[in-house]
Amino acid sequence: MSKTQATTAAGARVYLYDTTLRDGAQTQGVDFGVADKIAIAEALDGLGIDYIEAGWPGANPTDDAVFQSMPPMSHARVVSFGMTRRQGRSAANDPGLTAVLSARAKSVCLVGKAWDFHVDVALGVDRDENLKMIRDSIAHAARNGREVLFDAEHFFDGYAANAPYAMQAIEAAHAAGARWIVLCDTNGGTLPDQIEHVVGEVAKKISGDRLGIHCHNDTENAVANSLAAVRAGARMVQGTINGLGERCGNANLISLIPTLQLKMGMETGIGRDRLPRLAEVSRLLDRRLNRASNRHAAYVGEAAFAHKAGLHASAVEKDPASYEHIPPEAVGNKRNVLVSDQAGRANMLSRLRDMGIKVDPKDERVMRLLDDVKTKEYQGYAFDDVPASFELLARRALGAVPQYFALDRFQIQVEHRHNAKGELVTVSQATIKIDVGNERMMMVAEGNGPVDALDAALRKALEPRYPSLAALRLLDYKVRILTPQDGTKAVTRVMIESADDKGRHWATVGVSPNIMDASFMALEDGITFKLLHDGVRAS
Amino acid sequence: MSKTQATTAAGARVYLYDTTLRDGAQTQGVDFGVADKIAIAEALDGLGIDYIEAGWPGANPTDDAVFQSMPPMSHARVVSFGMTRRQGRSAANDPGLTAVLSARAKSVCLVGKAWDFHVDVALGVDRDENLKMIRDSIAHAARNGREVLFDAEHFFDGYAANAPYAMQAIEAAHAAGARWIVLCDTNGGTLPDQIEHVVGEVAKKISGDRLGIHCHNDTENAVANSLAAVRAGARMVQGTINGLGERCGNANLISLIPTLQLKMGMETGIGRDRLPRLAEVSRLLDRRLNRASNRHAAYVGEAAFAHKAGLHASAVEKDPASYEHIPPEAVGNKRNVLVSDQAGRANMLSRLRDMGIKVDPKDERVMRLLDDVKTKEYQGYAFDDVPASFELLARRALGAVPQYFALDRFQIQVEHRHNAKGELVTVSQATIKIDVGNERMMMVAEGNGPVDALDAALRKALEPRYPSLAALRLLDYKVRILTPQDGTKAVTRVMIESADDKGRHWATVGVSPNIMDASFMALEDGITFKLLHDGVRAS
Repeated sequence: MSKTQATTAAGARVYLYDTTLRDGAQTQGVDFGVADKIAIAEALDGLGIDYIEAGWPGANPTDDAVFQSMPPMSHARVVSFGMTRRQGRSAANDPGLTAVLSARAKSVCLVGKAWDFHVDVALGVDRDENLKMIRDSIAHAARNGREVLFDAEHFFDGYAANAPYAMQAIEAAHAAGARWIVLCDTNGGTLPDQIEHVVGEVAKKISGDRLGIHCHNDTENAVANSLAAVRAGARMVQGTINGLGERCGNANLISLIPTLQLKMGMETGIGRDRLPRLAEVSRLLDRRLNRASNRHAAYVGEAAFAHKAGLHASAVEKDPASYEHIPPEAVGNKRNVLVSDQAGRANMLSRLRDMGIKVDPKDERVMRLLDDVKTKEYQGYAFDDVPASFELLARRALGAVPQYFALDRFQIQVEHRHNAKGELVTVSQATIKIDVGNERMMMVAEGNGPVDALDAALRKALEPRYPSLAALRLLDYKVRILTPQDGTKAVTRVMIESADDKGRHWATVGVSPNIMDASFMALEDGITFKLLHDGVRAS
Repeated sequence: MSKTQATTAAGARVYLYDTTLRDGAQTQGVDFGVADKIAIAEALDGLGIDYIEAGWPGANPTDDAVFQSMPPMSHARVVSFGMTRRQGRSAANDPGLTAVLSARAKSVCLVGKAWDFHVDVALGVDRDENLKMIRDSIAHAARNGREVLFDAEHFFDGYAANAPYAMQAIEAAHAAGARWIVLCDTNGGTLPDQIEHVVGEVAKKISGDRLGIHCHNDTENAVANSLAAVRAGARMVQGTINGLGERCGNANLISLIPTLQLKMGMETGIGRDRLPRLAEVSRLLDRRLNRASNRHAAYVGEAAFAHKAGLHASAVEKDPASYEHIPPEAVGNKRNVLVSDQAGRANMLSRLRDMGIKVDPKDERVMRLLDDVKTKEYQGYAFDDVPASFELLARRALGAVPQYFALDRFQIQVEHRHNAKGELVTVSQATIKIDVGNERMMMVAEGNGPVDALDAALRKALEPRYPSLAALRLLDYKVRILTPQDGTKAVTRVMIESADDKGRHWATVGVSPNIMDASFMALEDGITFKLLHDGVRAS
């Protein structure tokens, strides 16, 4: 449509280079193990990523082990990362370079300086010597049979400060045999129009199909900057899954890939067939990092195709294109019509239909359920996050949930003391009194902690009657104090994630001033959901 | 530097329009109360935002109450939001419009359809009638003495499908007296070059200083799209704090403002003097929403100027510009040199210096401390998030933390049962045996929950000796199960945030297989940190 878009060769092949395992590993709070790195590499290969930068050999023991145990890839090239040689050494005698070249990887990526200020201040070497360091290192790696990439660190800051020197740095790498010259916006401060202009200038000297782009998100423009470079001719995009990376992160490949393919008509190694794997690759990384997925992530977030406002929800019912920029299935995501305080009747009915509940739109129980949701949300429930607890609430309102058991009372004890040997030990014990069918029983059990003990006592009482509970596992347990607001009293919200041997997983919630009561509610809902979906009848 | 940038009138005034309280309120999991909305509006006004869209009068009771109780603003105009009149009604008799105009607000923003497909399908009205609905509604609001804005919903999709009709829609609003015509990328699927092209075309018909831009983040380009519109001439930017908003969010004003001011040289109502308030406004919203701030947020995130890699940290020591695109203080943020598994000696020394700890760089206790941090992180600690616990660890390693108390044992009981009146009650009680100075004592206390009871018993024992603890408050309590990985055993991590009457707040952590042990550790560190910083000596 626009002038710039018209010059983009739609249909051109863009190469995708993932640095989640190297630059992404710099992120605050991220600490990949060997098994994590290999699982992520396999997922990236399965998706169709062209290059996987697996680590920096010699920098730490994890990365060395990763290269040793990396399985063969079906599509991707594994890349080892390192620096150009140090001042005053030959490339062949540089220990850093030697480590990079000893790793089992077809390609190597070497980073070097392109900003005169950094050469002078951070590195403190002569500018000509810096150019020699680049030339020698690239040539040495190429002689060793590697495909070589040159990461031109701080290229855009360098170009702004001293364009001729920045160009000399990348021309040195190009002349020495680098297959790809990657222009890095290392500090992340460059804007899209600047990127587009500079890459366009560089492409007059070095063909765009030799140029890559590596952006950081410090102005929230990493995705746009990468797209601007592609419009200007660059044909490799470096980034990370979910935009993982130091400071504000790297360019997010998960956002870039569908835009390149679906909106700009570029070819990648992924293609339309594998594009629906995108959401799963995004979630895999979060699971490996043991963190919640960003529900607002572009394309793949749980909320990316969520419709909360009553007006939107009813228009989406008529035609999804009215409020969706792409079909969610194209990237492996799905539409999500939300239950919430703002929900209208249309949302609620659509949600009930998704659960397979048929109800007359005029049934007054629907309005009562809406009121119930509003009341509970006011108390601190947040049903958006716990579809299982919402489903139970809805089914109870419509009178369709058996009472599998009824608690009479519980007592929990945690004791932290010295044992007979003088060692500090902590013992947790739960006692419950409970009705199952027409039998009242008392049970007592120990656990790693009070909730575990309560869970153990419940299972002891319930498993003889409901044997499928043996396959129920508690995956995650999260607690949050909701601070007093608008005069309401502080409450504790407990969320429990459960799973079973049928591959199902579900989250339930409990809210109470007391953490143990809230935990019991979430456990109770988790067990009830399992039994209901197993089709078990109350005994 | 670039062609497009050269055409931007640097120094031009760009008007900032915040819709956190209206479009942001559509976000999954967001539910503002009246007090929240007023506190946020006051912060936006204090920052220098030009327009604050406070809500949709008539849509819900909260928004009606907000307009009634909104205090006078010193700079900002309060805007009430609504739709153009319905089909078949006169503007004066439309109940929706009447509600919007009855709100106490100098400006009104009316949304109407600019995409022929939406007029046909979602609205189901004749296309000419839609144009009349726009014209009548804008004219009616203007006659009622309001400054009127027209939000042209789906403008870019509409322009792509039927440009003449999209233009007719906005020209109708313009002719009827709208001060601002706001071009909305409602579905968020348009790319920056497309936005720049279309806004440029529109600006040939309607002057850029009458044009606004309203973007959504569905391709992670909302910030870039807004900047592209400004480059093409638009002079109003609509967005939300922290990019809050339905699906993937709205354009993030917190990222846009510093880029507009510091990088594009535009004038806003904020100016350099108030720009350092930006980080605090961002955090205020998160506190109101009771959620953790995004540490990777552009400009204002805690990690936005964090340096983890040893190499970067040592270069930043030499000259901050080497790895920072702007000075962090300009936006109210600060540099953050991280402690972590990847940390080198330079990071550790810099961090100790920030705490005011002077230590010989060659002191072997520094290397021992590094090892200790690595071991604890392996166990599940995450010191990046809890500087107070890290500080205690460091000071203990260097032998500078008094032992204010020593726990011998604790016992916790939670009982959930029927009381004499037959009501369900839950009682939590904690018993501790503790040494304070040379006195051993036992204390027992009740609380809302087991941790509260433990805290109460500790205070009962400690406050007579350490009276400043009376001002210690527990702000937040978070629990996470760290799932087994790489063969390690599952543990519970508890984080506690504390504050006192001196405006200090600090976070501490405890990790243990048992939640109560982990909670005790975090409480103990929280108390010790307070006493240490009060300069109290152990009794």
